[in-house]
Amino acid sequence: MMAGKTLKVAMLGCGVVGSQVARLLIENKADLSTRAGADLELVKVAVRNPSAKNYGVKAELLTSDLNSIVTDPQVDLVIELLGGIEPARELILTALKNGKSVITANKALLAKHGAELYAAADKANVDLYYEAAVAGAIPILRPLRESLVGDEVLKVMGIVNGTTNYILTKMDENGAAFADALAEAQKLGFAEADPSADIEGGDAAAKAAILASLAFHSRVTDADVYKEGISKITATDVKVAKAMDLVIKLLAISDVTKDGAIAVRVHPALISRNHPLASVRESFNAVFVESVSAGQMMFYGRGAGGAPTASAILGDLVAVARHRVSGGLGPRESDYAERKIAKIGDTKTRYLIRLNVADKPGVLESVAHVFASHQVSIQTVRQSGAGDKAELIVMTHISSESALSQTVNDLAKLDSVTDVASVLRVEGEI
Amino acid sequence: MMAGKTLKVAMLGCGVVGSQVARLLIENKADLSTRAGADLELVKVAVRNPSAKNYGVKAELLTSDLNSIVTDPQVDLVIELLGGIEPARELILTALKNGKSVITANKALLAKHGAELYAAADKANVDLYYEAAVAGAIPILRPLRESLVGDEVLKVMGIVNGTTNYILTKMDENGAAFADALAEAQKLGFAEADPSADIEGGDAAAKAAILASLAFHSRVTDADVYKEGISKITATDVKVAKAMDLVIKLLAISDVTKDGAIAVRVHPALISRNHPLASVRESFNAVFVESVSAGQMMFYGRGAGGAPTASAILGDLVAVARHRVSGGLGPRESDYAERKIAKIGDTKTRYLIRLNVADKPGVLESVAHVFASHQVSIQTVRQSGAGDKAELIVMTHISSESALSQTVNDLAKLDSVTDVASVLRVEGEI
Repeated sequence: MMAGKTLKVAMLGCGVVGSQVARLLIENKADLSTRAGADLELVKVAVRNPSAKNYGVKAELLTSDLNSIVTDPQVDLVIELLGGIEPARELILTALKNGKSVITANKALLAKHGAELYAAADKANVDLYYEAAVAGAIPILRPLRESLVGDEVLKVMGIVNGTTNYILTKMDENGAAFADALAEAQKLGFAEADPSADIEGGDAAAKAAILASLAFHSRVTDADVYKEGISKITATDVKVAKAMDLVIKLLAISDVTKDGAIAVRVHPALISRNHPLASVRESFNAVFVESVSAGQMMFYGRGAGGAPTASAILGDLVAVARHRVSGGLGPRESDYAERKIAKIGDTKTRYLIRLNVADKPGVLESVAHVFASHQVSIQTVRQSGAGDKAELIVMTHISSESALSQTVNDLAKLDSVTDVASVLRVEGEI
Repeated sequence: MMAGKTLKVAMLGCGVVGSQVARLLIENKADLSTRAGADLELVKVAVRNPSAKNYGVKAELLTSDLNSIVTDPQVDLVIELLGGIEPARELILTALKNGKSVITANKALLAKHGAELYAAADKANVDLYYEAAVAGAIPILRPLRESLVGDEVLKVMGIVNGTTNYILTKMDENGAAFADALAEAQKLGFAEADPSADIEGGDAAAKAAILASLAFHSRVTDADVYKEGISKITATDVKVAKAMDLVIKLLAISDVTKDGAIAVRVHPALISRNHPLASVRESFNAVFVESVSAGQMMFYGRGAGGAPTASAILGDLVAVARHRVSGGLGPRESDYAERKIAKIGDTKTRYLIRLNVADKPGVLESVAHVFASHQVSIQTVRQSGAGDKAELIVMTHISSESALSQTVNDLAKLDSVTDVASVLRVEGEI
């Protein structure tokens, strides 16, 4: 333990994650301080109502004055765990301006106001670290920003929302309907009472923006991310996928179009059961990365939870503390590549389309004609059913989103098509 | 691009990996320089015989004078890709002493002389980076050293040798015998003409030492690693494993005994087909990490090859260059925990033991007696076969290596046991 230097740490917020951070910071003080090269001392924890419950820290550390944390001259390092946009944004900006290094897990804030925050950290010559903001305990931001900095990333494809992965796992393994799987997830604490941010893809979209920014050295915000959630996935979709040796996952994807723009989107997609992401079960997260030289990589682990998220925050804390001891700074965000954002219509992928059709001669011909008229080429067609009802399952070759959506519109207008039962994207080799 | 500062890069060696490093350094100079914050210029490449072949770099950069690289005052950064102990050790020490930062992929050297090299880098106040030394392109050393620095690692378990994983994959998927799978691997370039460093576990042991050092903040050398290779694994072992829904992998494992010592070993082990490592096929590598707060993680990707290894080296190069630009240094190795190395006999695990026995009454009783006499408790026994030959497959509960080896010795002496056909360790939940 270094007797020489002390760094004072203060926290904004002390909920599920914060209470674990505080506990570990106190319990493992000796190890963390030795690794940081300075005595790490927790001096203040700001919560809205200090007397509301037992936060697991000494009462005298608690304060309801959030602003006092970011203006106190004795505080060196601030951990922001309030979540949401305000007052987190204002508080972090003030902390940075006052020369404090900041660690945050606030993905929504970073995805929306990242540029402003990174610029403020730059200007103040302090660190702003946020490994915990994406995929919880999994080291993925540091590898993207530092380990792969000598390579050219081609694609990032992640399961970055544990709630939806839990629901999709139950639908896949038990044949559950979406609503039942959601209810189970809520009962077990894997989904919130209002699950919309998770199931409609908003949470994953914020993470997708952060991942894409780092991977492609460009500024990507949550508004740049096209998103579709999983609430329309049916037990039949899952069953059909299973019969084809595929599995449905909610993926946060970014890659570069042939024009050099970044296509970034969150949506359910079919992947092969042999894909490394296919075996990521329940609330686990994983991020699959493909780069020119390194090839395919995957980073797997716990994407949420108090202790796992605290692990990422404390890793950042030690890193940031080391920089303050040595006088240096960690590598900064970089957006020098200034890539544009592709329109979702220009994104290219394959699709699996299920159509309910009349079982009479000529149906396949008219369906095939619609595909051909939009230059969407068909890889396979399977027809099943009997009587006057039948189902066509069409797998396309790679096509643009815009050509596909026009195709689907026209298919719906065909007399012989009673219903476009589902349209799902397909990712990876199958 | 920064016109301000130029950093001069020189390479020792230009083989499979080196030629990719040189190519990428030249082709991607603009991007790499922008990311580093300084113009990265390749100024010298030392090879034993500059006229032997086309190294893909301008002839005027080539020299046969290895020493000139590490003493040239204009060189800022040295990439060592000679491999082996000498002259690599001497050259790196001289480079460090002369104030050059060094990037190396030399696992054998680091596992043997790491302490000396890290101390020399410390003394000279320069960086010594080596992400490429373990698991090629997979970012694993930086995550262990930096991302998980706020956590307590419990176990590291890696598939870190592509040759043996390729052989074991073929044995598992095609039922091939070891010799045939090895011959195929050699034909396809996945195994060398003399494969002993791979198949006997030497390569994996060096990597295990490096991983254990970082994970447990202690000094671990290759001599501390217990090792067994895969040359004794038979097609029958693989078949029996398969029938039990298990798969055999060569694992580099380190964990902490209840006395706080590090147990570090390389050996084949049975794992469940549901374990994340089970689906790591062919020459891919993966490292599974378990820590107190983060829980289970896995890092997956290409463990070898020119371009993948070059990706890791260039990531280090940019990181080290940034430090030279900003005046700082990266986080150093730390061995403050000074954990002892456990004796292999004290390592605890489960075992699967196959015995050929006489098929007569009382055999199971005498076998069970031997286990009991060494306090090795049996989880399951399966008996198969007919006539006067039968096979017993015994799965033990967790036991120490020493108790197990005494048990095996005594079993071999039993009249009713014709042969101890195999003894394999079992890792993870099954």
